[in-house]
Amino acid sequence: MGRNLTKRSEDYSKWYNELVVRADLAENSAVRGCMVIKPYGFAIWEHMQTELDKMFKDSGHSNAYFPLFVPKSLFEAEEKNAEGFAKECAIVTHYRLENDPENQGKLRVDANAKLEEELIVRPTSEAIIWNTYKNWIQSYRDLPILLNQWANVVRWEMRTRLFLRTAEFLWQEGHTAHATKNEAIAETKQMNEIYARFAENFMGIPVIQGTKSESERFAGAVETYCIEALMQDGKALQAGTAHFLGQNFAKAFDVKFANKEGGLDYVWATSWGVSTRLMGALIMTHSDDQGLVLPPNLAPHQVVIVPIYKGDEQRQQVLKSAREIKEQLQDVGIRVKLDDRDTHTPGFKFNDYELKGVPIRLGIGPKDIEKGSVELARRDNLTKSFVSQEAIASHIKNLLEEIQQNLFDRALSFREEHITEVDSFEDFKKTLKDKGGFVSAHWDGTQETENRIKQETKATIRCIPIDNPSENGKCIYSGNPSNQRVLFAKAY
Amino acid sequence: MGRNLTKRSEDYSKWYNELVVRADLAENSAVRGCMVIKPYGFAIWEHMQTELDKMFKDSGHSNAYFPLFVPKSLFEAEEKNAEGFAKECAIVTHYRLENDPENQGKLRVDANAKLEEELIVRPTSEAIIWNTYKNWIQSYRDLPILLNQWANVVRWEMRTRLFLRTAEFLWQEGHTAHATKNEAIAETKQMNEIYARFAENFMGIPVIQGTKSESERFAGAVETYCIEALMQDGKALQAGTAHFLGQNFAKAFDVKFANKEGGLDYVWATSWGVSTRLMGALIMTHSDDQGLVLPPNLAPHQVVIVPIYKGDEQRQQVLKSAREIKEQLQDVGIRVKLDDRDTHTPGFKFNDYELKGVPIRLGIGPKDIEKGSVELARRDNLTKSFVSQEAIASHIKNLLEEIQQNLFDRALSFREEHITEVDSFEDFKKTLKDKGGFVSAHWDGTQETENRIKQETKATIRCIPIDNPSENGKCIYSGNPSNQRVLFAKAY
Repeated sequence: MGRNLTKRSEDYSKWYNELVVRADLAENSAVRGCMVIKPYGFAIWEHMQTELDKMFKDSGHSNAYFPLFVPKSLFEAEEKNAEGFAKECAIVTHYRLENDPENQGKLRVDANAKLEEELIVRPTSEAIIWNTYKNWIQSYRDLPILLNQWANVVRWEMRTRLFLRTAEFLWQEGHTAHATKNEAIAETKQMNEIYARFAENFMGIPVIQGTKSESERFAGAVETYCIEALMQDGKALQAGTAHFLGQNFAKAFDVKFANKEGGLDYVWATSWGVSTRLMGALIMTHSDDQGLVLPPNLAPHQVVIVPIYKGDEQRQQVLKSAREIKEQLQDVGIRVKLDDRDTHTPGFKFNDYELKGVPIRLGIGPKDIEKGSVELARRDNLTKSFVSQEAIASHIKNLLEEIQQNLFDRALSFREEHITEVDSFEDFKKTLKDKGGFVSAHWDGTQETENRIKQETKATIRCIPIDNPSENGKCIYSGNPSNQRVLFAKAY
Repeated sequence: MGRNLTKRSEDYSKWYNELVVRADLAENSAVRGCMVIKPYGFAIWEHMQTELDKMFKDSGHSNAYFPLFVPKSLFEAEEKNAEGFAKECAIVTHYRLENDPENQGKLRVDANAKLEEELIVRPTSEAIIWNTYKNWIQSYRDLPILLNQWANVVRWEMRTRLFLRTAEFLWQEGHTAHATKNEAIAETKQMNEIYARFAENFMGIPVIQGTKSESERFAGAVETYCIEALMQDGKALQAGTAHFLGQNFAKAFDVKFANKEGGLDYVWATSWGVSTRLMGALIMTHSDDQGLVLPPNLAPHQVVIVPIYKGDEQRQQVLKSAREIKEQLQDVGIRVKLDDRDTHTPGFKFNDYELKGVPIRLGIGPKDIEKGSVELARRDNLTKSFVSQEAIASHIKNLLEEIQQNLFDRALSFREEHITEVDSFEDFKKTLKDKGGFVSAHWDGTQETENRIKQETKATIRCIPIDNPSENGKCIYSGNPSNQRVLFAKAY
């Protein structure tokens, strides 16, 4: 159990890999780079989906579904986008298998069933969607189109890690079409803001909103907004992006509309997405050497009750109390599990739920019943206390809110402690090496400088924070003038 | 609008195709055989998903996610299953594109990026899942495993039709593992029963539960249970299936468990699924020459309010009343839309919501306000009436239930009228030709007879109803003895 996990201080990467598998979140599959998301991990993802879906719908978006495949000729239409994804595409070339005459019981690709045009398994859906929007948009009355889809996408990554970088992953991708540039930019900012609220309020992950430098932009975007989170090992993680696509896709797919004045304009576009990568952010923000730590909002079980007894008589008595407590908690909307399995010891269960990050564990035995109390263990700070069974539901409801807030506050303190302003390249390198985190520094705005800093330090510009104060200074690398600081970090 | 739809009596197939597109449910995409599910159609599918997901979870199942791709060597492991799907597989052979040196700005498949082993885009997931279960199951304590996934699958059909038969479709697939044969059979029956309850109570579609004959069974199953519905044109539609897979997949993937007695057994399996094909069943059960008819349970908007006015003063007055009614309906949980667009006439809106199948339409104008009433139009029977604004919410709530029931009753009457018992092959053919529907007839139980009947009449055995009464008779085709009737029909 938790005890046998590699310690974070020993090998953070190994700790992460072990935790994902042993907390039953996901595992590698027989398909190179593709993961199996296990029921416990998937239940967490479902909570994210439900909340995000609600936020999207509350802001006027609807769901739809577009094909998994993109014909090559459509894929290559927007050149920058195509160039960005061409090197990591799974490609369908045939549509039939046949019996292998040389291998009894085996199959081989039927050479006669070659597709006339290859199909790309979508790495992202701008191309297929804008080719569709072309037929939906004639006039300004058809705008805006505000759609989202929940889907799987495939990017053939060479080095994969569970949740963080997998060949297939699950995500949502919003694709909107607008009559004006300003409206599209407002939509992009709104969706980035929604992601930030979701990450902070629902997942307990503090994020910095900003825009990307040109070299970190989405392929085909005019501007990429992002939310950047900081992991416990001092590396940043891009947790969501919203792209202002300008008229690039409208031009590539010839999507024009009759405007109010009677003229013909190209349509303005945005796209935005978050993925199962958020599971990685979740783990590396809150968890500890004992295992996963879940914010109550995301926990499949917010409370687990473990009965402690010897013999059948005690068992009946303890289970009766445990069931009463369970009902009281359920009645106020708490997700609670009573683990009444007779095949495992309380000690085993304690360790297992600790490993799996259940926010509150209640232990109840004969002595507790006598005293009218239960033992309560908090997963976030590993403290234990005895609480009265009276009014337990409202006590726990409040405590869950407190834990949710505590996890955010703790992560925020850590993040604030790990934003370091530096004014020289020496300090820059030293900070990255000794402390990690975000390094706030002046940059001359050129790709060349950005690339050199990356080559020398592996740090990249994570974002230019929105509402960044203007400040005159000198680029830490080139010494050239700069009018604002940007945030650098090593990143996942 | 509705007026211009092809009539069902003229050309049922054409009516269906037009309806799907014009009611904004789905359309063909740029990818051969793949559809775009439009927001209105997808919202209906989401209601199905939500209800089914609840039913699955209430019966102890959890969701998970398994890879989109199946390596060829796993795909071919269960031979019958592989044989059943080999001829309709999309196959990924490469993982990279490169610039085409002969075509500026175009891409081509990079011949150096050929996969060592081809990947099949899942047509169904038994293979990849049982290869995973192998590592999850050691002992009877690990059983049962009760999982479901919501996913896209690809079957390269040559003739496709929106929702009914598409190259890519959305579905859920349950995959369970059990220690005993009886438990697996009970699970199969339970899931078929859940599908039947869902179809009847939620979608208003009466279904017959039964088992398939050998030739209609799922490839790799020992027994296939199904729910069969009857469409308005007298053709049957298989609306869901649940398969008892025996130990076929456990043997193919060597999945054994230590039983309670200390021996080693192969694990017993089931799988079960319904898909976006249900959208086709929905349309062809309830809709009419005016367009879609939606059971209230599935309707994205159960009620639409259309304000009728001339000039701004009337508009303010009417909208005020309309908003009050909207709030009253929302307060009792009714999904209601107020269409206050100024760009479309009431007549246009009436037609559009009729085409889109909104169960109840309320029209409200200045005269209605004077009289304290609204005009209410029911979509199911196209009747209109005036109802008092007082207590309108409870009235409409009851009416929605009545409409839901009425649609089911109507479909049930039609289905009952279209089950015909015949005792000769002459009557069999005549019934199929003149009346359609299910034909209940004696069959000798051989595949040969089944095939010949299919060749001569295009009718197949839809199912052997569960709890079928035993009855001695003679096969309508061969004259050989038979001890039960089975249901034949032409089918989608």
